[in-house]
Amino acid sequence: MKALTRPIIVVNFKTYPEASGARSVALSKVCESVAEETGVVIAVAPPMTDLAAVVESVGIPVLSQHIDNVKAGSTTGHVPLESVVASGAVGTLLNHSERRLRIADIESLIGKCRNAGLSTIVCTNDIGVTKACSSLEPDFVAIEPPELIGGDISVTSANPAIVKDSVGVARQICSGIGVLCGAGIKNGDDVAKAVELGTDGVLLASGVVKAGDPRKVLLDLADGMRR
Amino acid sequence: MKALTRPIIVVNFKTYPEASGARSVALSKVCESVAEETGVVIAVAPPMTDLAAVVESVGIPVLSQHIDNVKAGSTTGHVPLESVVASGAVGTLLNHSERRLRIADIESLIGKCRNAGLSTIVCTNDIGVTKACSSLEPDFVAIEPPELIGGDISVTSANPAIVKDSVGVARQICSGIGVLCGAGIKNGDDVAKAVELGTDGVLLASGVVKAGDPRKVLLDLADGMRR
Amino acid sequence: MKALTRPIIVVNFKTYPEASGARSVALSKVCESVAEETGVVIAVAPPMTDLAAVVESVGIPVLSQHIDNVKAGSTTGHVPLESVVASGAVGTLLNHSERRLRIADIESLIGKCRNAGLSTIVCTNDIGVTKACSSLEPDFVAIEPPELIGGDISVTSANPAIVKDSVGVARQICSGIGVLCGAGIKNGDDVAKAVELGTDGVLLASGVVKAGDPRKVLLDLADGMRR
Amino acid sequence: MKALTRPIIVVNFKTYPEASGARSVALSKVCESVAEETGVVIAVAPPMTDLAAVVESVGIPVLSQHIDNVKAGSTTGHVPLESVVASGAVGTLLNHSERRLRIADIESLIGKCRNAGLSTIVCTNDIGVTKACSSLEPDFVAIEPPELIGGDISVTSANPAIVKDSVGVARQICSGIGVLCGAGIKNGDDVAKAVELGTDGVLLASGVVKAGDPRKVLLDLADGMRR
Repeated sequence: MKALTRPIIVVNFKTYPEASGARSVALSKVCESVAEETGVVIAVAPPMTDLAAVVESVGIPVLSQHIDNVKAGSTTGHVPLESVVASGAVGTLLNHSERRLRIADIESLIGKCRNAGLSTIVCTNDIGVTKACSSLEPDFVAIEPPELIGGDISVTSANPAIVKDSVGVARQICSGIGVLCGAGIKNGDDVAKAVELGTDGVLLASGVVKAGDPRKVLLDLADGMRR
Repeated sequence: MKALTRPIIVVNFKTYPEASGARSVALSKVCESVAEETGVVIAVAPPMTDLAAVVESVGIPVLSQHIDNVKAGSTTGHVPLESVVASGAVGTLLNHSERRLRIADIESLIGKCRNAGLSTIVCTNDIGVTKACSSLEPDFVAIEPPELIGGDISVTSANPAIVKDSVGVARQICSGIGVLCGAGIKNGDDVAKAVELGTDGVLLASGVVKAGDPRKVLLDLADGMRR
Repeated sequence: MKALTRPIIVVNFKTYPEASGARSVALSKVCESVAEETGVVIAVAPPMTDLAAVVESVGIPVLSQHIDNVKAGSTTGHVPLESVVASGAVGTLLNHSERRLRIADIESLIGKCRNAGLSTIVCTNDIGVTKACSSLEPDFVAIEPPELIGGDISVTSANPAIVKDSVGVARQICSGIGVLCGAGIKNGDDVAKAVELGTDGVLLASGVVKAGDPRKVLLDLADGMRR
Repeated sequence: MKALTRPIIVVNFKTYPEASGARSVALSKVCESVAEETGVVIAVAPPMTDLAAVVESVGIPVLSQHIDNVKAGSTTGHVPLESVVASGAVGTLLNHSERRLRIADIESLIGKCRNAGLSTIVCTNDIGVTKACSSLEPDFVAIEPPELIGGDISVTSANPAIVKDSVGVARQICSGIGVLCGAGIKNGDDVAKAVELGTDGVLLASGVVKAGDPRKVLLDLADGMRR
């Protein structure tokens, strides 16, 4: 089904024009096709405005990039949990470095998502925050050092210790938690290294979205997962 | 075409569950059907996550409920102008009482929307803010006294003076501007009164979204527009 | 000296008019006088605008109510760490329920405060957030269930389990951490109960600030601490 | 008295360490001394935490850098109007480029300040926002193009048209309004030019705060005002 099984590659489309509107659906279909060919689980997080349209178009897991901790109803211009559920998405990123949340909201949203059957991936910036967020028991934490996001060097090369230690503290606090890593992930070697360091996969964006040939990159990433 | 011609009825779906996901598309189709039958222009502003899906499904004008004044790209979980344009929406609400914006951002967004061909409807709460926002030259201002939003009494009955005076100050500052009113609008009489007070139509939400029979309400609203 | 020794009574003046401007200094002097008479450590957190004025006027520990995680310099209208240090305050509340912070900012501010020699009291709303914040190793956590803040029933009576369990998880995660409790604390019995439940003292506001005779209340609170 | 008479030089201390804590009081005294010697009105806007302490120390007008549009009382860590009034400040900056406000809040705060006897200086970034803010009838608008703030070239040299046109639109909308300009103001020539362009004075920060000899700079600025 669409559940967030492990290991997993999560592609965050951010708000890149290359992955917005019709191009958001198109890229999601490329992800789906590679997932089918390789058997590797690939989830996508399209721009907020494309969420329902992407869910309609593909069979792979679709995630929201964010949820606002507000009630459904009189909250024009926000994205409450209910909007995400109604769109058909199966989960959400929370606390991405570009959309940080207050700690009480992270906890509240994790609880609401659990009740609604949405999977949660809480992004963290360092080992301290990984530890803190793991104690709130989301489905996944995703360690992404902000200084490496969007860069050319994979976190798995630039700072393997932060990945390994994040896996350690996360599982010590919350034994069944999934752990992803992100920032600078570009190819199959980076994915293989991430898995070797103990993670359940990767979270990446520009490496796929801004690639000349996203399909080729995705095939390489999937290959890294199967080594 | 889809442009925001006047007069107009704008239906803001907010984030009501009755108008989210598949029900967002369904309600948009009801709006489209009434618009076709009556010849009255009806625009819809669905939940953010449904924007592209609704655009795909109907031929009437679709609006965003909000735009974040951020750049497209590394802005996970936000809704930049480019996301709205890529979705196919033809315009946007700005500064809704449930999503107020900083004044410098309102001005910046009005300019960006103009360049991108998106229509702008800037919501205001009183005559002072109507005057201030009109001077920024959006396509429309929509006066909605917050204390009447979601209530049972139409602004056109509760405070006709604020509607009439808003029309006056808005057109004095910016002669070609469209003026809508909202808050408590429920039926054709309210619409007829709004037009009589000099507006170019209405902005409403719960009156349609939470109605037992939205189609019936929309037909009545459209009838009010044609008196 | 002024350090935050334990046990401690922390009086948050919030922005109550009864404790603003000259009355902020006056109430701080009452706190100082009771601290001297009873030997119980009492710290005060006056309105932001009174911080330096209160530090000048009393010898007891003075705390900021909040710090913005911004740099000193071109940050008009904010309160960076450097403003708090320059005022002479010895520490700060962080993440009060009326001023929640993003988790990455809490971690960052705890680190900056530690380097600058400021004590940190991180407010939490439940056991999950207490656990998460304790893992960031502030000097104190202060558990305050928001629904009880400003009310008539002390958290120590309404929900002794949350106090006891917060003490437990906090010390399990971070052995040397101080733990306070707050919400509805009004008298010496409440303080005695808080200490009995394992805390290092209390954080309170309206119980002192809005009392007809704050001196009398403070003497009673101090008495509760010495039982 | 302390009222904001015209013409005026307003020194924003921002949160510069050179003007925080004891140094905030010291710099305010230098401003006071120059004001007394030259007869030119100089107002100061110290860091938020120093507000009451500075008011106690000098007889010149002291301004807040910002007000939060929240109620006094249960608003820990915020700065409501009442805190500013209680501190003894005579007015406030609003909507500084480093602390932008939502338009409905600017309007609300201008009204509250007027009722409380506080003068308001609303900062604007361009002619459109100057026009919009003037329609809300604050005591002053202060035009400061953000790209010139903190820079070496005075707005009066870099863009005299924006200053002159701001004066024009502001007075057209609100005949009695005061108009200041800021960004890059460094010396008496800049002040003289600002007055020549029709303003009632200047708003500056680093030109004084980061000067090797603030007294000397202030004397030169005051001299520019009297040419």
